[in-house]
Amino acid sequence: MQSLETITNWALRRGFVFPSSEIYDGFAAVYDMGPLGVELQNAIKRLWWREMVDTRPNIVGLDAQILMHPKVWDASGHTEAFTDPLVDCGACKKRFRADHLYEDATDKNADDMDMEQLGAALKEAGVKCPNCGKDAMGEPRTFNLLVGAEMGVIEGEKETVWLRGETAQGIYVNALRTAEAMRLQPPFGIAQIGKAFRNEITPRNFLFRVREFEQMEMQFFVRDEKMADEQYAFWRERRMQWLREVIGLSEENTRYHEHSPEERAHYATAAEDVQFQFPFGWKELEGIHNRGDWDLSRHSEYSGNKQTFFDQEANEHYIPRIVETSGGVGRLTLAVMSEALDEETLEGGETRLVARFKPAIAPVQVAVLPLSKKDPITEKSMEVFEGLLKGTSLRVQFDETQSIGKRYRRQDEIGTPFCVTIDFDSLEDDAVTVRDRDTMQQERVKIEELAAYLSAKFE
Amino acid sequence: MQSLETITNWALRRGFVFPSSEIYDGFAAVYDMGPLGVELQNAIKRLWWREMVDTRPNIVGLDAQILMHPKVWDASGHTEAFTDPLVDCGACKKRFRADHLYEDATDKNADDMDMEQLGAALKEAGVKCPNCGKDAMGEPRTFNLLVGAEMGVIEGEKETVWLRGETAQGIYVNALRTAEAMRLQPPFGIAQIGKAFRNEITPRNFLFRVREFEQMEMQFFVRDEKMADEQYAFWRERRMQWLREVIGLSEENTRYHEHSPEERAHYATAAEDVQFQFPFGWKELEGIHNRGDWDLSRHSEYSGNKQTFFDQEANEHYIPRIVETSGGVGRLTLAVMSEALDEETLEGGETRLVARFKPAIAPVQVAVLPLSKKDPITEKSMEVFEGLLKGTSLRVQFDETQSIGKRYRRQDEIGTPFCVTIDFDSLEDDAVTVRDRDTMQQERVKIEELAAYLSAKFE
Repeated sequence: MQSLETITNWALRRGFVFPSSEIYDGFAAVYDMGPLGVELQNAIKRLWWREMVDTRPNIVGLDAQILMHPKVWDASGHTEAFTDPLVDCGACKKRFRADHLYEDATDKNADDMDMEQLGAALKEAGVKCPNCGKDAMGEPRTFNLLVGAEMGVIEGEKETVWLRGETAQGIYVNALRTAEAMRLQPPFGIAQIGKAFRNEITPRNFLFRVREFEQMEMQFFVRDEKMADEQYAFWRERRMQWLREVIGLSEENTRYHEHSPEERAHYATAAEDVQFQFPFGWKELEGIHNRGDWDLSRHSEYSGNKQTFFDQEANEHYIPRIVETSGGVGRLTLAVMSEALDEETLEGGETRLVARFKPAIAPVQVAVLPLSKKDPITEKSMEVFEGLLKGTSLRVQFDETQSIGKRYRRQDEIGTPFCVTIDFDSLEDDAVTVRDRDTMQQERVKIEELAAYLSAKFE
Repeated sequence: MQSLETITNWALRRGFVFPSSEIYDGFAAVYDMGPLGVELQNAIKRLWWREMVDTRPNIVGLDAQILMHPKVWDASGHTEAFTDPLVDCGACKKRFRADHLYEDATDKNADDMDMEQLGAALKEAGVKCPNCGKDAMGEPRTFNLLVGAEMGVIEGEKETVWLRGETAQGIYVNALRTAEAMRLQPPFGIAQIGKAFRNEITPRNFLFRVREFEQMEMQFFVRDEKMADEQYAFWRERRMQWLREVIGLSEENTRYHEHSPEERAHYATAAEDVQFQFPFGWKELEGIHNRGDWDLSRHSEYSGNKQTFFDQEANEHYIPRIVETSGGVGRLTLAVMSEALDEETLEGGETRLVARFKPAIAPVQVAVLPLSKKDPITEKSMEVFEGLLKGTSLRVQFDETQSIGKRYRRQDEIGTPFCVTIDFDSLEDDAVTVRDRDTMQQERVKIEELAAYLSAKFE
């Protein structure tokens, strides 16, 4: 795997990711998706939707908004418990993530530690202030990560609302309405992709830890504990399979990580992460959690509206249990980029940077490359381009700048599986050269057969 | 066209739209998209992306984030000029939108009025306080609509940032970076779909005016005024054509509305809206604006980084001019729903509620309806369902609750173009009944030919 620096530079240079507000000297821990990044993420999100919604008779989609009633976050526990451990330097007064300081100093994991343990561990490791270098770190304390927004137009009467800290709550508060409108009874699921926010004090690792992020998650509602266990087992397997087979993460770089009782959220009865081996180590990519009946119990209590379903056989109202699968789009994007980017040494010693995206998620799937920028080559090439747009559902790019060698190199770098070159012979034989990204083999294909030829490669 | 009340009730009942945080008594002017609403919007957004990005060699996509450096909003003019005219009642102290009060009282349009004119018009119309009824309305003043968010974890040192008031600025600040990474020179475009926020004091008309909304917009960068005029003329035609031919808005309910000099934003040299005839009147659906070189001039000035391109022939640096097309996803969704929902009187006097969505955007495109909830019908129906998932790219729903008559009715109401019914004969003849939403005609189709038969209907 390439280093995080190599991956970051490549992503910036090739139009996958841009630092936010760069011309204003940036806005920390926020990244905009460039033209290739947005195509890559859209492809991932569509495949996720296909897997989680389109192909599942008992799962429906939802798009709850970022803004919700503030009480939702009391019920969810976020106003109380959505926190990071922070520690101040007594000398220079700078503030840091206590767990990160410990992890950086020791290479050990601090996920399982409470504040007391973390404070003791920092002292034992002799951690000094990274800013002023003094041995003056205080006791770690928890700080809330919710981002407040001011709604209303009257000064002094503005209402503070929270930008959602997770998308899940949007599903929980809509669960009964959704079930009613779609005539669903447990077992059923609700899936959603959307933005969430957190006040990160020390964002780091590029797309891994940011202040504005996107989640893809599905909440599955079931009758009882036994069914929750079954669903948990099913999704645990299935999500890993999807990440490997559909998205293309390797077995080598993916693993399960079961939460210890200390790591586990207070509401979870079982919890596991799918971890990915990023350039900076094994980290959570997606969580599969058995949340019990905690969520709808809390919303029943805080809203005063019973969040129950009716079991006709047992003749009783019940609060369903929930199994969730929840992952970050940005994290998965970074994992996919880390997995794909490869530097290969060719015969003769030259190196080639190539992004080995699975063809289904490659931001550009076919590049149409005219050998010249003049008619009749341009005209012929536009015909080929338009033929592929009409005849396939692939993402096709038309690229006529610079030499053909440089263009092949660039298409390799952005992970385009196939390049189609239109040359002077094409004017005579109505055929084009198709070049394979991975083998670099070239094949001559009739233009009239091109759409079918390429479509078949992506099936 | 149905009334706004009928459309709203249908959308809520049928799972298109849910009021936000309903179990907490709601959160005004925010609407969550239900299972059918999210499919409808995703279909619209995908068609827009295909039209604006996939099929255009010189337009690329982008996904800038909601959070940006606060200075962006000084440069854009939003901290100064992103305002609504509000007026206070001197008696009860309630605050209202001054233009809405005038429009509601007179049925005239207040878009062209400045604060002074609006104040005079309110007086002339004798507008009284809608809350206390007293004749005590003050002078209208402008109030800023930007929503502030508090970033940072240290009390007293939090930084106020703005939730973006429009998505366009994310494109402008990334324009040079995007052009460089993608090797683009004007003429080129950048397209984006994303959320924006505004502090509405008197939200109304369902999805039309909300506090959290989504925009689809494309900013096209050109060398000079002549090219800007050409692009303006092109997109003006083209956007209307797309809205009518692809999305299915009728000629009857769409029109151009040219901005008067008073309506026009200070930076625009030409501006036109596509208006739709909503149940509450003709309103803006999408704007086509010639913005001149205002945007990048301002960002050059405020960032201190020149936002220029280089013209090799003329040997000079220049700030490109921008033509934009910008529309709201929620508004378009409401327009599509308004256009589609129809109440038809059948022979015999019975009425039928049917949503006549264009097949391409129907949230459910094919419904698979087993005539019985038991095997072997269920098994056979699941085979048909899975065959359609594999053999088509259509959105297919499996629906086995209630009588077949009720299910046809429900599928009509949600606008499903085709219903596929599996009955006891299907076990014998391996064929199913396909029912057309609009004609209600039924046809017997062999299961092995079903995928191709239905796919052809959507081409």
